Amino acid sequence: MTLPALPPQASTAMSAVNGPRFVADLRALSRFGGRDDGGVSREALTDTECQARQWLVQQLQGAQYQWRVDDAANLWVRRAGRDENLAPVMTGSHIDTQPVGGWLDGAYGVMAGLEVLRALDDAGLSTRRPIEVMAWTNEEGSRFGPGAMGSSAFADATRLPTFLAAKSPQGDAFATERDKALAATPSAVHHPLGHAVHAYVEAHIEQGPVLEDGGQRLGVVTFIQGVRWFDITVHGSSAHAGTTPMGVRQDALLAAASLVHRLHAAAMARQDPDLRWTVGRFEVSPGSVNTVADRVRFTVDLRHPQEAVLDAMEATLRTALVADAGACRCDCRDLMRRAPTPFDPRVLGVLEAAAQLTGEPYRQLGSGAFHDAMYLADVCPAAMLFVPSHRGISHNAAEDTPEADLITGVRALAATLFTLADAN
Amino acid sequence: MTLPALPPQASTAMSAVNGPRFVADLRALSRFGGRDDGGVSREALTDTECQARQWLVQQLQGAQYQWRVDDAANLWVRRAGRDENLAPVMTGSHIDTQPVGGWLDGAYGVMAGLEVLRALDDAGLSTRRPIEVMAWTNEEGSRFGPGAMGSSAFADATRLPTFLAAKSPQGDAFATERDKALAATPSAVHHPLGHAVHAYVEAHIEQGPVLEDGGQRLGVVTFIQGVRWFDITVHGSSAHAGTTPMGVRQDALLAAASLVHRLHAAAMARQDPDLRWTVGRFEVSPGSVNTVADRVRFTVDLRHPQEAVLDAMEATLRTALVADAGACRCDCRDLMRRAPTPFDPRVLGVLEAAAQLTGEPYRQLGSGAFHDAMYLADVCPAAMLFVPSHRGISHNAAEDTPEADLITGVRALAATLFTLADAN
Repeated sequence: MTLPALPPQASTAMSAVNGPRFVADLRALSRFGGRDDGGVSREALTDTECQARQWLVQQLQGAQYQWRVDDAANLWVRRAGRDENLAPVMTGSHIDTQPVGGWLDGAYGVMAGLEVLRALDDAGLSTRRPIEVMAWTNEEGSRFGPGAMGSSAFADATRLPTFLAAKSPQGDAFATERDKALAATPSAVHHPLGHAVHAYVEAHIEQGPVLEDGGQRLGVVTFIQGVRWFDITVHGSSAHAGTTPMGVRQDALLAAASLVHRLHAAAMARQDPDLRWTVGRFEVSPGSVNTVADRVRFTVDLRHPQEAVLDAMEATLRTALVADAGACRCDCRDLMRRAPTPFDPRVLGVLEAAAQLTGEPYRQLGSGAFHDAMYLADVCPAAMLFVPSHRGISHNAAEDTPEADLITGVRALAATLFTLADAN
Repeated sequence: MTLPALPPQASTAMSAVNGPRFVADLRALSRFGGRDDGGVSREALTDTECQARQWLVQQLQGAQYQWRVDDAANLWVRRAGRDENLAPVMTGSHIDTQPVGGWLDGAYGVMAGLEVLRALDDAGLSTRRPIEVMAWTNEEGSRFGPGAMGSSAFADATRLPTFLAAKSPQGDAFATERDKALAATPSAVHHPLGHAVHAYVEAHIEQGPVLEDGGQRLGVVTFIQGVRWFDITVHGSSAHAGTTPMGVRQDALLAAASLVHRLHAAAMARQDPDLRWTVGRFEVSPGSVNTVADRVRFTVDLRHPQEAVLDAMEATLRTALVADAGACRCDCRDLMRRAPTPFDPRVLGVLEAAAQLTGEPYRQLGSGAFHDAMYLADVCPAAMLFVPSHRGISHNAAEDTPEADLITGVRALAATLFTLADAN
């Protein structure tokens, strides 16, 4: 592919990125929900996340800026363009974390966007189009399912009513928690959900080992693998553990554990290094030492770059739920279902040219994780930029990236956003 | 075995049992924590159980009665004997339930004891020894481990400090909840923990299918099988479900599920109908759809009438925790450990004579469940009386027993308690 030529001010924007300022701001955000072990606990729409939202809207102020919020509690800042009638170039990510997450997942992309705007200010650069930096609501999906609610609702507002009815495992309604988040940032102007976007570029940590293992400092992300989430309920019958003979039990915990064991064996038997098969949640009722369980709910997270492999593994799952549940009965509900997402060649060209401009080694790769960019790709040209993850660790307190790589990513993002926002 | 002759007033006491009054009182107790499905949720020392305690102390009042409570929050009523210096005959059970339990487990034995005292009053019968009807604290062990804390501490008060430090899965301390329970019944006189007991007889539902299957209406319980509880923690490492290759994971949930699957297979391979092997609790951290679990805690409940079989299964467990946990590491902690408990031949003789006196079919059998009588057997002659459980179901909202059988049990208990309490 021949890379597009970047305008000379793209270098100016890149050079104006203030690395120490950016890292300090990123660390400041990590203190909201920060843990002694270096991790961050800041699940979507919690009090902690609302405090982080309040901090965020104080970070960028000025005549050229407006903070906005929508009905999905997406929170963003808009930097005015020379032509305010044009669709904005958009960047960002999310500030919510897993129950125990790292300091970079999501936060990196939001703070990288803010630093690019500051760099443009410092360099005295305006852009033809407005630039918007988004903090999408509930990307992680750990507190409210499914994940990426904010960007999903942005791409298709008809999804919002279903999301509003979602409940956390503790019984909190998304709608109620959304209202608390909206009330936390009263200075943000309320805008309708969803609007035209010229292009979307999201910076993120890789959350995998590819870049570190290959010695690259940047990754140009050409696609996101497909993902399917299932919510499975195994119905048995509770009974006394001391008196009920083994042979007459309908033990939901045993049936569910055996399903997890066998389905994992079936996944491994495919010997496919790209397949991801995970049971991350497993909830037992009544959960008492001396009572045979009458119900287990567990989740399956299935991912692969190819739709045909997803189909085959889903068929294996559905067959096992009927054939291998013993005396129990299983229900299976879809929580999420996304085909592999290819990114836009034109945006990828600009991203790759910007990566080259940094002078650091880079490569193309696919994303193992899903991201808000997955839904934005439904409504505008989109792509992503990765920086390395140390040992590929993420969704873990030990998640980390060298500061130099974090800064290189912001520099590439600055050149990319300026180019996309200033072009004719 | 030649059965002992019962005194003539044993028949008088039996005849004075008021069946409808007893059933009405038992149903009244079941309304504390009563559920629409017929089950009862009244875990130990909860507000609901404290309300049931308040109701209980209102049930039996009079000059011959005193309600008492001790440092383990055991709550009991004492009916005066003609010689108050003699050790009392004791009966009772517990009023706490599983998270979702039935209406009879425990409650039956407590209310049966109260009805016997009322029947003695109605028949104008006094006894040489006092009679005490106990409601033992936290028999179920579902909210605070181990089970049977109240009777265990009664038998050996040195166990109490450890129990006071126990915490519920929600983090409530037993000591704090105990204090709330003590405050709930201020009219009960505080007595030191543990005292001499002449004999203990506990009435209970069978919680198994033996009596119903055999057409017997009463069971004379000659022993309780041995029980061991283990609390196992599997340590892995959290990771992103979409990006982390399957081969490099330390997935605590997968390791735990595979252990449950394999250990169950090992238990079944023994083809021993008396073996009970149950995993009832299985808690996952962080418990998020798209995060590989870093920790699972699960319990094992192991029971058998023979100590040698318990030893063999425990060895299988401990070997598997080292050999079959894959990339994870396991800890195993003892929660409870009790050898099989034989009951007292003399008390069994009186019980069997009383069962015969009812005219209903009865048999001897062992108890699959443990009971407070297990700890009382450490400090006094003890035995138990069972009534049938419909389809053997217990620890389940569907737990039930025909009213006629419930009343037959109280009649046998009345003859037994009078005989034991009035003998020289």
